[in-house]
Amino acid sequence: MKPKGEKPAKEAAKAEAKPEEAKRVTFGIDKNADFNEWYNSIVRKAELCDLRYNVKGFVVFQYWSVAAMKQMYNILEAILERKRHKPYWFPALIPEKNFNLEKEHVAGFAPEVFWVTEHGAGEKLEEKLALRPTSETAIYQMFSIWLRSYKDLPFKTYNRCQVWRYESKATRPFLRSREFHWIECHDAFANEEDARQQVREDMQITKEFLLDELGLPFIFFERPQWDKFAGAVNTYAADQFLPNGRLLQQPSTHYLGTNFSKPFNVKYLDANGKEQYCHLTCYGPAISRIFAGIVIAHGDSKGLRFPFNIAPLQAIIVPILFGKNDEAVLKYAESVRESLAGKFRVDIDLGEGKPGEKFYFWEMKGVPCHIEVGPKEAEEKTLTVVWRDNGKKEKVKLGEINRFLEEGGKALSQRLKVQALESFKGMIGEAKSLEEAKNLIEGGKVVKVNFCAIDKSGEKCAEAIEKGFGAKVRGKRMDIEEKPAGNCIVCGAKAETVVYIGREY
Amino acid sequence: MKPKGEKPAKEAAKAEAKPEEAKRVTFGIDKNADFNEWYNSIVRKAELCDLRYNVKGFVVFQYWSVAAMKQMYNILEAILERKRHKPYWFPALIPEKNFNLEKEHVAGFAPEVFWVTEHGAGEKLEEKLALRPTSETAIYQMFSIWLRSYKDLPFKTYNRCQVWRYESKATRPFLRSREFHWIECHDAFANEEDARQQVREDMQITKEFLLDELGLPFIFFERPQWDKFAGAVNTYAADQFLPNGRLLQQPSTHYLGTNFSKPFNVKYLDANGKEQYCHLTCYGPAISRIFAGIVIAHGDSKGLRFPFNIAPLQAIIVPILFGKNDEAVLKYAESVRESLAGKFRVDIDLGEGKPGEKFYFWEMKGVPCHIEVGPKEAEEKTLTVVWRDNGKKEKVKLGEINRFLEEGGKALSQRLKVQALESFKGMIGEAKSLEEAKNLIEGGKVVKVNFCAIDKSGEKCAEAIEKGFGAKVRGKRMDIEEKPAGNCIVCGAKAETVVYIGREY
Repeated sequence: MKPKGEKPAKEAAKAEAKPEEAKRVTFGIDKNADFNEWYNSIVRKAELCDLRYNVKGFVVFQYWSVAAMKQMYNILEAILERKRHKPYWFPALIPEKNFNLEKEHVAGFAPEVFWVTEHGAGEKLEEKLALRPTSETAIYQMFSIWLRSYKDLPFKTYNRCQVWRYESKATRPFLRSREFHWIECHDAFANEEDARQQVREDMQITKEFLLDELGLPFIFFERPQWDKFAGAVNTYAADQFLPNGRLLQQPSTHYLGTNFSKPFNVKYLDANGKEQYCHLTCYGPAISRIFAGIVIAHGDSKGLRFPFNIAPLQAIIVPILFGKNDEAVLKYAESVRESLAGKFRVDIDLGEGKPGEKFYFWEMKGVPCHIEVGPKEAEEKTLTVVWRDNGKKEKVKLGEINRFLEEGGKALSQRLKVQALESFKGMIGEAKSLEEAKNLIEGGKVVKVNFCAIDKSGEKCAEAIEKGFGAKVRGKRMDIEEKPAGNCIVCGAKAETVVYIGREY
Repeated sequence: MKPKGEKPAKEAAKAEAKPEEAKRVTFGIDKNADFNEWYNSIVRKAELCDLRYNVKGFVVFQYWSVAAMKQMYNILEAILERKRHKPYWFPALIPEKNFNLEKEHVAGFAPEVFWVTEHGAGEKLEEKLALRPTSETAIYQMFSIWLRSYKDLPFKTYNRCQVWRYESKATRPFLRSREFHWIECHDAFANEEDARQQVREDMQITKEFLLDELGLPFIFFERPQWDKFAGAVNTYAADQFLPNGRLLQQPSTHYLGTNFSKPFNVKYLDANGKEQYCHLTCYGPAISRIFAGIVIAHGDSKGLRFPFNIAPLQAIIVPILFGKNDEAVLKYAESVRESLAGKFRVDIDLGEGKPGEKFYFWEMKGVPCHIEVGPKEAEEKTLTVVWRDNGKKEKVKLGEINRFLEEGGKALSQRLKVQALESFKGMIGEAKSLEEAKNLIEGGKVVKVNFCAIDKSGEKCAEAIEKGFGAKVRGKRMDIEEKPAGNCIVCGAKAETVVYIGREY
């Protein structure tokens, strides 16, 4: 392990009198005061990804983020498999003709497709191939081959993969780029009821993954009819709230009805031997964007703070050397690392620099705790553990360190979750008029309002809000039922629903 | 879990009098007598992948293979991380200009590249982008940004990803296709010695993964100079021997010297402050091809046989129902499943059909053992375990099942490995003349011969062998030193080396 500061800082440091002191810099940006600066800086300083790759909108995901995203994939895949999804790997290339089968879908996605048209020394392919922006049109033709009888249903798949979209909006690392890493689930059912039950299960999966495992709060909304996934009957999406008051869409799940099963001929024989179309659902958690969500929800002015279960390193051992008994300390530190290595992700920082600098560095990197090992600890066979989030320092006997870290790690994750939930709740406001809503949104809130309807009839009122102060109607909350009491804040008609409005990331 | 037989078999079954009996078919093809038929059939019957995807050379990897390949990725990534490789995700698209920087490399790979040239409604991209066939030209430009000082070295990365190659040879599922799943490791070093040490470590990694973990025998060869990776100084590759006498190339590792670091400007400052070029290595284990290797090495006339550590299911519970006490049996079976589920990949077969049919089916699928649970077992709180490879039947107390499966699983893996090693050794012959070599190769052997040299000077002799009887010089063995005693079997000059020749898959 060779922790490296940022290059320019390193080079600047070389010129100074005491290079080892200046080498590892602290972070020190207030997330809430200047969110954009905070986010861009932490992505660069913690070496999460590198924007200098020479294809526009593409980045290189570096070790420190990939190590965490690997753990995230493991956790999510385990949840999906518990819910009886099976893993499949579908091809990355989709023939143009498949893509054109579902009209709304192609209209929605065609502008974003990268096309493979040639091979070798410029020879044309017989047919243009889409680099998958999403896999409905690759997968459902296989469903039509595989599914025959009601006994084959439900049929639930997941595909861990990358997708590519020629984004016209400004890209931003992890949040929006032309290549991203996700899982897409595609499921087939005998009827609408079973399919809609899956959509509810997808929301439950999202809760287990984002909130329970990662401490990331969100609200699941039924999106208005004018803001659906291209080709869906209904779209449900989780929104995270950013410190700047913007809403970031996290996983979404879609009830597709028979919109795709008809053009792709996904049918089965029911118990009476009658042919029926399958009802399909799809669900797409984007790992790279959820990673951004975690960075944003849990980070503080010292840098990153990882939940224990996905931290690239869960503990970093820092030897405290005084120039005597150093060998004994280093030997003890190494034996501690070895004894922890089977159970935790752990390393020793043997790099240059004073212990204090190392502490700052690993705090910035978000490691849940550092373990100080000095002559006293070596002699007593103890360890001094300091937690990243609250700075609490605890002395632990070597024989108790495994259980201590396990329990302490869970407690840290729980504290991060509680703090994130608090900020989250503090961001919701409520307004009875357009003026009030506008003020709240300009003050960085997400605002709950009475609204006429989220079917097509409400679209004009939504447009008025967007034109008025750039906020979007995110939809009706799915986790709790909220009954409207009053009139739509735009048109004044009797409100059919309660919606949340806010500015989109 | 709904085990499904092959569709045509299923449909045929429907027409018969006793559908549930005919539904699950046995396998019954002799691997050694008709290898091609055996392989194609097991891929289809076990539902490993589906060739009916509508892009030529692309397949859909189905649940049963993906579940095993997931475990393979986990095992390999853990080995790589123990050897201090860090995970990175590099982009799938590479600008044409990068690709053209290393002349031998572009000459070798350009014919196989898929090109992305358009986006949206046919708008041309500013620059053609290669869909990565391999990532040297994406990654080394980043090395040139990241690496500054000798303190940054060694720098070891791995990238889990897919690659795409417009293969002109006939494709075959898992063995050769236009899209495959692999890991590529790219490492930078201060000098040739360190880089060559990495190449040796790559061979050790291959042994730990293929032989120790998966029971898959191979020989690592230094490839002749005329058969190198495009752009390498030296190429070393593992060869597996197929039952039809063909050689299947498994992971290869390459010493690239400074061939790429010069055009990509990958330099560092040494301890004296002097600028030096890095020495690079790359290593590419193809998970989908290694999966094929396992299917082939361990399968038998009843179907697949998975090593315990990668089996999609490690045990399948089959309830034996007699029409009375069925409820108690099913309840007991479910409680067994639950108690095993945290530790093993296990399921119950509650499908239609008689127990005997289920046993055949899961044998064909390669599940390491089936667990019979009938009224007697339910009453005694015991289990009857039958192992896939040797049919041995053992009665186990419920309280001992965890340890029994763990130890029994390891023992099964060990037996598969020993059998595979035996077949492997039996395939090596030795020849003193061209005639003898030809006869051995036509008899399905891989043949050890004295050979003039594997530098450029031996190329003509190699061509003579290839023209003579279609065999290729695979190179000099790396695991043991074999001294030539005699003359080259082609030109009769004093042999500098011992090589192995055989027909390539």
